[in-house]
Amino acid sequence: MKIAITGKGGVGKTLLASLLCKAFADSGYSVIAIDADPDSNLAATLGFPHPEKITPISEMSALIEERTGARPGQAAAYFRLNPKVDDLPDKYCQEYNGIRLMVMGRIKKGGSGCYCPENAVLRALVTHLLLARNEVVILDMEAGIEHLGRATAKAVDKLIVVVEPSRRSVETAYRIDKLAQDIGLRNIAVVGNKVRSQSEKEFLISSMPGFEFLGFIAYDQTIVDADLGNLPLVDASQQIITDVRSIHQALLSNIGHQAQ
Amino acid sequence: MKIAITGKGGVGKTLLASLLCKAFADSGYSVIAIDADPDSNLAATLGFPHPEKITPISEMSALIEERTGARPGQAAAYFRLNPKVDDLPDKYCQEYNGIRLMVMGRIKKGGSGCYCPENAVLRALVTHLLLARNEVVILDMEAGIEHLGRATAKAVDKLIVVVEPSRRSVETAYRIDKLAQDIGLRNIAVVGNKVRSQSEKEFLISSMPGFEFLGFIAYDQTIVDADLGNLPLVDASQQIITDVRSIHQALLSNIGHQAQ
Repeated sequence: MKIAITGKGGVGKTLLASLLCKAFADSGYSVIAIDADPDSNLAATLGFPHPEKITPISEMSALIEERTGARPGQAAAYFRLNPKVDDLPDKYCQEYNGIRLMVMGRIKKGGSGCYCPENAVLRALVTHLLLARNEVVILDMEAGIEHLGRATAKAVDKLIVVVEPSRRSVETAYRIDKLAQDIGLRNIAVVGNKVRSQSEKEFLISSMPGFEFLGFIAYDQTIVDADLGNLPLVDASQQIITDVRSIHQALLSNIGHQAQ
Repeated sequence: MKIAITGKGGVGKTLLASLLCKAFADSGYSVIAIDADPDSNLAATLGFPHPEKITPISEMSALIEERTGARPGQAAAYFRLNPKVDDLPDKYCQEYNGIRLMVMGRIKKGGSGCYCPENAVLRALVTHLLLARNEVVILDMEAGIEHLGRATAKAVDKLIVVVEPSRRSVETAYRIDKLAQDIGLRNIAVVGNKVRSQSEKEFLISSMPGFEFLGFIAYDQTIVDADLGNLPLVDASQQIITDVRSIHQALLSNIGHQAQ
């Protein structure tokens, strides 16, 4: 099963990714978490010790040069656009509490006009993880779908767009929906996060007619306090764990249903 | 005066940018606002009518081809890396309530290895606005400083990193500080946003020793409600307007002090 998570910055993509990883791992699945958002820290949220010591793939210059023939940041006339990467997950995954993690680092955005050696490795790696691995893969992305393309769109069982009760996060969701449709990705669903009241929930539902809502996560000050107190966020709020478990169930029955 | 605003997604960069634009305009300055964050909507926050009708520069394909010699998204052997852009601000600024606005659109991230026609135009335009215009320029950026480089670093009077009481936003601030130092940009200051209590304020101050705090903005549910009710955010909260005015004052005296 392959799940990609996106949405506006700050809506809580990484927390949802972490708790979904745990929910899958707890029910016996083998899970690979991919941190593809350089502005977040999936390792820290998952409680990995010393997350600052994990080197992102995009910063492994020697590896990128070995695989593409070109050194990151240096002008090169040619480099391999389809580097070999199938051995990288086993070599470079970190593991903690039964969850394996790869940190991608900063991918350069953009479409057909934007090539560089780091991007070639990251794209090939994401494609490999989505198309060729049997694990549950959970991809925590930025506000967009730059890591996906026509080839990988079919492999994504669900693109989850996280929104919070704010107009901007809903606008971003619409923009992402359009980008997803452009590459033929149609398995999109929404999770509403940081919901403080019934009226905020209704705001989200009425703002996004036609979208499938997988579930809602209540706002919980406990998470904010745990963060400030430097406690692991995945264990901090029983309410949020319960909310994400029900999203996990919706995901399983939803994807199971599609497969029939 | 040239002000660039950055910070983690969701911390409130765009609201601060809007209110600073207003504060400068209200005290008689001529202001150009630059929306350089494709995941936000400075036009809407500033109250521009029909923000969805503004075409971002990066999507003006004919203009980009005219100026660089290459069409966005198409492979090109050569294109002009230093296109002429000095006429663009006067041609493509939108104006509302005395504030002029340019919407940049999606810039492709990355360093020396990442070239494309859109980036060439956007980079040249930001450089021109920072180096050659006399207006107050307020640049609302993503979580990073991709729009700045060694040449423009000297022109930025203040890089404001917005943080909220959360560990991730502080981590992002440290990462941005490092990137800024790498290009020789040292005029960095912090604004703490969405502060709910004295202890949250103290968390921010104690987490960021050595950083200069320009001021703090209180959390105000009024802003959230105004957003859900589709009211203009710049006018919604008197508390926040007051907080930003004092940040505006700190900025003026701070930059005036440096210039002596």
